[in-house]
Amino acid sequence: METRFADRIGKVKKSFIREILKVTADPAIISFAGGLPNPISFPIDEIEAATKKVLREDGANALQYSTTEGYLPLRQFIAERYKKRFGLSADPNEILITNGSQQGLDLLGKVFLNKGDDVLIERPGYLGAIQALSIFEPNFHSVALHDDGVDIEALETALQRHNPKLFYAVPNFQNPSGLSYTEENRRRAAEVLSRHNTFFIEDDPYGELRFRGSDSLSMKNFFNEGTILLGSFSKIVSPAMRLGWVYAPKDIMEKLITAKQAADLHTNYFSQRVLYSYLAENDIDAHISKIKSLYKAQSDCMTESIEKYFPSSVKCTKPEGGMFMWVTLPEGLSSLDLFEIASKKNVAFVPGDPFYVNATGTNSLRFNYTNADEKMIKEGIRRVAEAINELMSK
Amino acid sequence: METRFADRIGKVKKSFIREILKVTADPAIISFAGGLPNPISFPIDEIEAATKKVLREDGANALQYSTTEGYLPLRQFIAERYKKRFGLSADPNEILITNGSQQGLDLLGKVFLNKGDDVLIERPGYLGAIQALSIFEPNFHSVALHDDGVDIEALETALQRHNPKLFYAVPNFQNPSGLSYTEENRRRAAEVLSRHNTFFIEDDPYGELRFRGSDSLSMKNFFNEGTILLGSFSKIVSPAMRLGWVYAPKDIMEKLITAKQAADLHTNYFSQRVLYSYLAENDIDAHISKIKSLYKAQSDCMTESIEKYFPSSVKCTKPEGGMFMWVTLPEGLSSLDLFEIASKKNVAFVPGDPFYVNATGTNSLRFNYTNADEKMIKEGIRRVAEAINELMSK
Repeated sequence: METRFADRIGKVKKSFIREILKVTADPAIISFAGGLPNPISFPIDEIEAATKKVLREDGANALQYSTTEGYLPLRQFIAERYKKRFGLSADPNEILITNGSQQGLDLLGKVFLNKGDDVLIERPGYLGAIQALSIFEPNFHSVALHDDGVDIEALETALQRHNPKLFYAVPNFQNPSGLSYTEENRRRAAEVLSRHNTFFIEDDPYGELRFRGSDSLSMKNFFNEGTILLGSFSKIVSPAMRLGWVYAPKDIMEKLITAKQAADLHTNYFSQRVLYSYLAENDIDAHISKIKSLYKAQSDCMTESIEKYFPSSVKCTKPEGGMFMWVTLPEGLSSLDLFEIASKKNVAFVPGDPFYVNATGTNSLRFNYTNADEKMIKEGIRRVAEAINELMSK
Repeated sequence: METRFADRIGKVKKSFIREILKVTADPAIISFAGGLPNPISFPIDEIEAATKKVLREDGANALQYSTTEGYLPLRQFIAERYKKRFGLSADPNEILITNGSQQGLDLLGKVFLNKGDDVLIERPGYLGAIQALSIFEPNFHSVALHDDGVDIEALETALQRHNPKLFYAVPNFQNPSGLSYTEENRRRAAEVLSRHNTFFIEDDPYGELRFRGSDSLSMKNFFNEGTILLGSFSKIVSPAMRLGWVYAPKDIMEKLITAKQAADLHTNYFSQRVLYSYLAENDIDAHISKIKSLYKAQSDCMTESIEKYFPSSVKCTKPEGGMFMWVTLPEGLSSLDLFEIASKKNVAFVPGDPFYVNATGTNSLRFNYTNADEKMIKEGIRRVAEAINELMSK
């Protein structure tokens, strides 16, 4: 029989990164390609203890169906943390627990986007967001990212020209660039946004992982009525549990709950209970501190290796937090060509192309430094340097 | 600022059942309204042991990101079970692990449905499917259900008239009616379907819960190329874990994986590992047998109470499995009116209306018998009988 697919599904690209990850499953390959947290940071024993406690004290409820909104004490924990981090007066009823923050994007797409609606994203932008929102067939527009944040003039122009429904951004340690918006940049972006009718989606999976410099406030501090936050426990506790959330104003939350109910009734309640028990019985800030020390050491090792091996014409960001470093080759060189040469030397990264809505042959690329030990980082960077030299001498 | 929602979200109704469930949270109310498994059937200790084993033996992987398709041994287990139950030669690569089978519906909607496409469902039909697919703005058509299954003539007419992309059905112990398709009915339905171009979505959450009569083959045995199966561990292990699956031909699976990746990257891997370890270390068939004995006793208790208290003009199905009983009041009476009277007597059920795409004032209603003990069932049915007598004497 003939299979009649929906139009939308032809418009979503399979993740190039996931294709690369299949290649890098070979243990001989040193991979800076993925975006995986370091598993030595996972609180394995504490999760075991939390599971035991939850099942023994309330097993019948912890294994039963639950509410679409998510476990209330977990939502209260998240709301309290927004108060503590940013002084925001978050209400637990403005928090919806989702299957990772990725699902938040799917739900926002469902709630906001008609086919052909305009959406703004950063350039380069997070691939998973492009994928998630592509399902709803919007027109994407992009706005350049600089060292201090979004290009304010370009933002104003894009808002005026396209009147997008949503502007999706990762203001802290952005994926892929690792860059953060300064507080001044946020203030100016909020000022521009407040004159338009576009919701700002602040995706913040890495915000708590600052190991240098000082934290900024959230965009919601500056653009309260128009900011929707996405958050995640993936980078600070465990990605396998797929526990994230959306923090949105109540009129939007009501629609998100309808969409969530239709999508999967509710998020894994067993894991919500285990995670909450873990958070209640342990010092999450001490745990996050450990992760930050680890990532700082890994990031510094990568920076030092780059300084040692790379030609000076290659520019790299110096991360202040998060999981990624952004590398720019001299003008005219293609990171896809570099990827080809590097793979033969058993080292992998993600070329820049998939992070651009409409670009090929870019000279940028992404390194992840959190999932390789220092020995591998040094050796991997040495191999990439060899590949760069080969590419430059061609 | 003005909030510009997508058109689709206005078309999805909040679940009437979930609204009822909020009311029935009051412990004074005897509720036959929900669709919850009996928590005394949950293997709490075994899940604790499975979690301990997984975390101690492979914690770093069990808490990490994983593949979109799902944990391979779990998919192999599911494929093997299809071989055992139906003799189907299922390939693990045709199985995708989802957040409950509800997410399977969301993904199928994404992959198949353009706005305005035609979809066929049973009358009455499963509310969660109507909700999930409504997001994609199809035109729903319905086909009547009889004691032996779908109305074959009505099916043929609907296929001819509407050429629907999908026909969604629950052939075993249907929600809400509790009815099952006989094997002869399946054979005839498959024969009709094979002359058209419509995929048959066989949602089968209750199929393993037969406590009377004998099992039928799957629709896939009769309509192999056009059947997509949805399955779930919610009713046989734990609903909180939200672990279900889609079993679909490979060309469709490829698109489903793209949609799944965009929706939430992958299903909770920690729970997949715990569930698989539970399945590997325990006899799931013995566990299912215990659930079936429990539900048979509860179902029989409800049938006996109904025979004792209800006027003979009220017709009830006698369940052979699953979780629901379907009640038909004499012509002209409204189950919504009965619901009003019954709530004042602190007993609840789901009136038939939300199970029909276009109907109000139906005389049918759904009882769930799995989540109340025998004392509550007897007392609850006595109260509903009182309410029926009041309604009939008006």
